[in-house]
Amino acid sequence: MLLHKINEVRTQVKEWKKQGLTVGLVPTMGALHNGHLSLIKKAVEKCDRVVVSVFVNPIQFCPGEDLDKYPRTLEADNKMCEDAGVSIVFAPTPTEMYGQNQMRTNDFLTYVIPPFFYVNKLCGKSRVGHFDGVCTVVNKLFNIVNPDYAFFGEKDAQQLIIIQKMVQDLNIDVEIIPCPIVREESGLALSSRNKYLSDDDKIQALALSKILNNIKNCYDKGITDVKALKETAFQFLNEHHELEYLEFCDSETLEEKQTADSKTRVFIACKVGGVRLIDNILL
Amino acid sequence: MLLHKINEVRTQVKEWKKQGLTVGLVPTMGALHNGHLSLIKKAVEKCDRVVVSVFVNPIQFCPGEDLDKYPRTLEADNKMCEDAGVSIVFAPTPTEMYGQNQMRTNDFLTYVIPPFFYVNKLCGKSRVGHFDGVCTVVNKLFNIVNPDYAFFGEKDAQQLIIIQKMVQDLNIDVEIIPCPIVREESGLALSSRNKYLSDDDKIQALALSKILNNIKNCYDKGITDVKALKETAFQFLNEHHELEYLEFCDSETLEEKQTADSKTRVFIACKVGGVRLIDNILL
Repeated sequence: MLLHKINEVRTQVKEWKKQGLTVGLVPTMGALHNGHLSLIKKAVEKCDRVVVSVFVNPIQFCPGEDLDKYPRTLEADNKMCEDAGVSIVFAPTPTEMYGQNQMRTNDFLTYVIPPFFYVNKLCGKSRVGHFDGVCTVVNKLFNIVNPDYAFFGEKDAQQLIIIQKMVQDLNIDVEIIPCPIVREESGLALSSRNKYLSDDDKIQALALSKILNNIKNCYDKGITDVKALKETAFQFLNEHHELEYLEFCDSETLEEKQTADSKTRVFIACKVGGVRLIDNILL
Repeated sequence: MLLHKINEVRTQVKEWKKQGLTVGLVPTMGALHNGHLSLIKKAVEKCDRVVVSVFVNPIQFCPGEDLDKYPRTLEADNKMCEDAGVSIVFAPTPTEMYGQNQMRTNDFLTYVIPPFFYVNKLCGKSRVGHFDGVCTVVNKLFNIVNPDYAFFGEKDAQQLIIIQKMVQDLNIDVEIIPCPIVREESGLALSSRNKYLSDDDKIQALALSKILNNIKNCYDKGITDVKALKETAFQFLNEHHELEYLEFCDSETLEEKQTADSKTRVFIACKVGGVRLIDNILL
């Protein structure tokens, strides 16, 4: 069932809750691929009813980012969801979510702001305000759908950790279910932004997963010094790569690590052919 | 029933919800007086079950404010609530609400931040960060108690308007019930901070309600120019008063007014004997 209005979703979910059914939410920006599908399947398995939200959230895009050209494929998304057993695809307009007023800054809107310590690193450093927009829209979706479970991919690991922190800090009554990264056979992590890559770019993009796998291998062989582990990355980089960061952080607190351990997650962001890609791995 | 733990409250409320009962929340900082009691009575009248939270929220006090000396009278509060038919008095510790970590800034905690336009005036101007703390704790209480209705006094009108804005912006599924100011016979608006006033101060404190009533009378007689209305205030002020602000704002959007109308609310803050008092009136 494709719904566009907040009240329609709310009414339906309340009906389910009255019947004692559990509700799962998979928040997405659409352009669904097999990565999303793995979350959706997990949700359908775990919950009596599943809501997939499809909303390209304007307030999480920074100036100069790809808000306008971000892929929008609602018809195909809806079909994929229906086939997977999703009960509601919730696809609101920006106006439905944020009202008529086009001024969507924190001058005129209430924001949910994640802690600076979690934001002032990795993607948050270059994408200023991005996670404010993410937390705000996810908070809104939680309030609209009132899910028992919400499913987030580990692909956006910093986002996942920040959402878990928000749920804890604000006592939100939802269980966050992390879902592992889905990759092409080549190793490339699935992303809606892969659509921007040329065939050549796609080959160059393999550097990200290769770097991460190599670091994991080195760590498994006993190398724990982060400096040394970082240095193993350069063999995979060439003039096609614009490395933004390669960082080692605690997988819960996002504290930077000098020495890697089994709770360390390695995060990489790199532009390939002008397309910004991210990936990560738990050691 | 006096409860101190989030999970105890949550479990009890879920039980009520299963039975189809409606739940009202009256958030307070304790030191309950007849103003609170009027909210509580309204809640008991309107809802099947009522939760009164009693929590002196550290993150809404600014440095140098009266966090430590703020009156704490839990036993009497609990008695008043029981007598009024309240089902749960929820009195958590700061640790229960914010965890062990004493660093409760937005470096380490997720905050709910009201729009700058609503905050950069009236009490928000001198109490920097105050409404961030208010919105964050009220959001937490909403998530813990999951009330159908929440009751706020018009005494703290800027707070009420900011909470209503938060509920709208974040799609929180709660109905906010505003409750009129309760006054002593003298006209003094009830406030927990009145306990700080000497007998002499209490007489001087009447200036606030006198100024507001006089402005309302002048408005009713046809004076709408805000400058002229403001000037009527000075006859009530003397060396015992330290006026912080006297402002005319829209009662929904908090927009400043040059010309008063029936949607205008007049806000006053004034120190008397070192005690900061506020009051307001709708024209």
